[in-house]
Amino acid sequence: MTGTDPTVTTLPGPDFAATFPGPFPAGPHSEHTERRLLGWLEEYPLLPSAKARGVLVNITSHGVSRTFPTADPDRLVLFAELLLWLTAFDDIHAEANAVGDPAALVDRTGELMLVLAGGDRPPASTPFPAALHDLLARFRARTGPAAYLRLAASLRDTLMALVWEAHHVARPEEVTLATYLAMRPHTVFIRTITAAAEIVLGYELTDAQRDLAPVRRLETAVSNLAGWINDLASYQREVARGPVQPLSLPTLLRARHGGTVEDAFARASTMCENEAATARQGITDLTRDRPSTLTTHARALEDIIRSFIWHTGHARYQEPGRRAAAPIPGRPGR
Amino acid sequence: MTGTDPTVTTLPGPDFAATFPGPFPAGPHSEHTERRLLGWLEEYPLLPSAKARGVLVNITSHGVSRTFPTADPDRLVLFAELLLWLTAFDDIHAEANAVGDPAALVDRTGELMLVLAGGDRPPASTPFPAALHDLLARFRARTGPAAYLRLAASLRDTLMALVWEAHHVARPEEVTLATYLAMRPHTVFIRTITAAAEIVLGYELTDAQRDLAPVRRLETAVSNLAGWINDLASYQREVARGPVQPLSLPTLLRARHGGTVEDAFARASTMCENEAATARQGITDLTRDRPSTLTTHARALEDIIRSFIWHTGHARYQEPGRRAAAPIPGRPGR
Repeated sequence: MTGTDPTVTTLPGPDFAATFPGPFPAGPHSEHTERRLLGWLEEYPLLPSAKARGVLVNITSHGVSRTFPTADPDRLVLFAELLLWLTAFDDIHAEANAVGDPAALVDRTGELMLVLAGGDRPPASTPFPAALHDLLARFRARTGPAAYLRLAASLRDTLMALVWEAHHVARPEEVTLATYLAMRPHTVFIRTITAAAEIVLGYELTDAQRDLAPVRRLETAVSNLAGWINDLASYQREVARGPVQPLSLPTLLRARHGGTVEDAFARASTMCENEAATARQGITDLTRDRPSTLTTHARALEDIIRSFIWHTGHARYQEPGRRAAAPIPGRPGR
Repeated sequence: MTGTDPTVTTLPGPDFAATFPGPFPAGPHSEHTERRLLGWLEEYPLLPSAKARGVLVNITSHGVSRTFPTADPDRLVLFAELLLWLTAFDDIHAEANAVGDPAALVDRTGELMLVLAGGDRPPASTPFPAALHDLLARFRARTGPAAYLRLAASLRDTLMALVWEAHHVARPEEVTLATYLAMRPHTVFIRTITAAAEIVLGYELTDAQRDLAPVRRLETAVSNLAGWINDLASYQREVARGPVQPLSLPTLLRARHGGTVEDAFARASTMCENEAATARQGITDLTRDRPSTLTTHARALEDIIRSFIWHTGHARYQEPGRRAAAPIPGRPGR
């Protein structure tokens, strides 16, 4: 599984021109969000490096204005802070940094679990628990019990998935494709973004609506797409980190089906395009009738997919010498 | 921290005669529950050994009839199955068995997280995920979204706490007392029992009631008591497992304050008695007014504490050569 040529710079990528053609709508609050995120990070210094702070604040503020283009500015900022918090935690305490020391990640996630559980907490070793406490209190004040609990559940699941990932990232060959596919939505934060959509945009599905087969199918397609798009975009950056193959869709596809990394990218791209077609069909079906909570939800999921596609074009995934998959035709050129 | 004489068989225990005097009420459904649990275990063979099955079914069915003496039989059975499921998972995949292989526990809890998250799941390696799926569907059918989500949140927190515990149980000296005290409620299942109380007994606190200072104080006291009572009762059984000191209140108290194991038991017993006094005061305060959801909740917590006290007298904690703390005067003689 090792020995991939790190100089390969262009690999086949999925084409979303037919299913999610650009340009994608962006809301008007990205600069306001950027300023507020920088202010929040002074209160909660999650990222030590000014450069990392700048890159993450930029992608987050411009990304969320595409995730929820119609959101009101205050709710959008709150969502942006949560997403930034998650990404910063993943960057600093999970991902590559947890490879050598999964027990340390378990301690950090344990501190966060105590915040989510809402009881007394011991002194924390980082600003992440206090920042999470602040975020949860503000989300809780803005929504009902069930919507809040769904958001908190998605965070708990993500923490568990990050712990799972940290225990396997050094030996991706031990992970089955089926397990990887089931876990991936939780490490890419899509469940938190979907749960937050209802709070940010002010709607709430009933349990019966949530259980409808077309809704579940659409949510599954969106969840898969989010993780797979991200895997293709970040693959070469992760390969460059070495020494083992990244715990990522192309790695798992090669382990399952053999072939070159190009073959794996071609296969993953087809998977993405098929899932995008499923998602597009679901959005069409759910928005056919007159406006309702279901159409609002389907439109929110459409924007969420678009923002994931948009993300792959950001500099975070385009560092010099670490180019991602070939440009995706459907995404806006930036 | 090692070298404790394992032949010590009598250590000071807490006296609950003033705060929780026996005898404790027991409901009429323990034999019905016992039969149903045995049937459920044929469908979901969680415990391979007939002896382990017998002991666990016995303590669970008699225990839950004290936890919820007024519950209707069907809801009581459902709760008993959940508690048995949790205890069996802890016995088989967590606790001592996870010492040498926390990564395996992470994989097992990862499978359970996927069940809690409700999406597609890969084939599981044990019957625990399927059994959890069955339990969650039945709880969900019997209550509203928020109560269900609170129960599921408590299970997620417990799984994370078990993973945390597995990463520290081989080196308890690295855990601070403050962290241990914060984590302990989640490994003793008290949060799940408390969340289940509302579903089993058919009441629901509002968020405002849940946040009242007297309610939080009472729930904190009950959570602490549950863990500490259990630690004292199981300490010598855990010491006998060796080779390191158990990750348990007496161990942490000795690390913090020094002294003998008897000193630690005396200190822990005082802590228990103080917390029992706080709990009793809270129950008295909350049940002073006319019957309401708050009085129902306070009475439920009273029965929950009683059942924890009752448990310490069961054979599970009284195996030959592994006697627990000296008999607790407040508990019924059995």
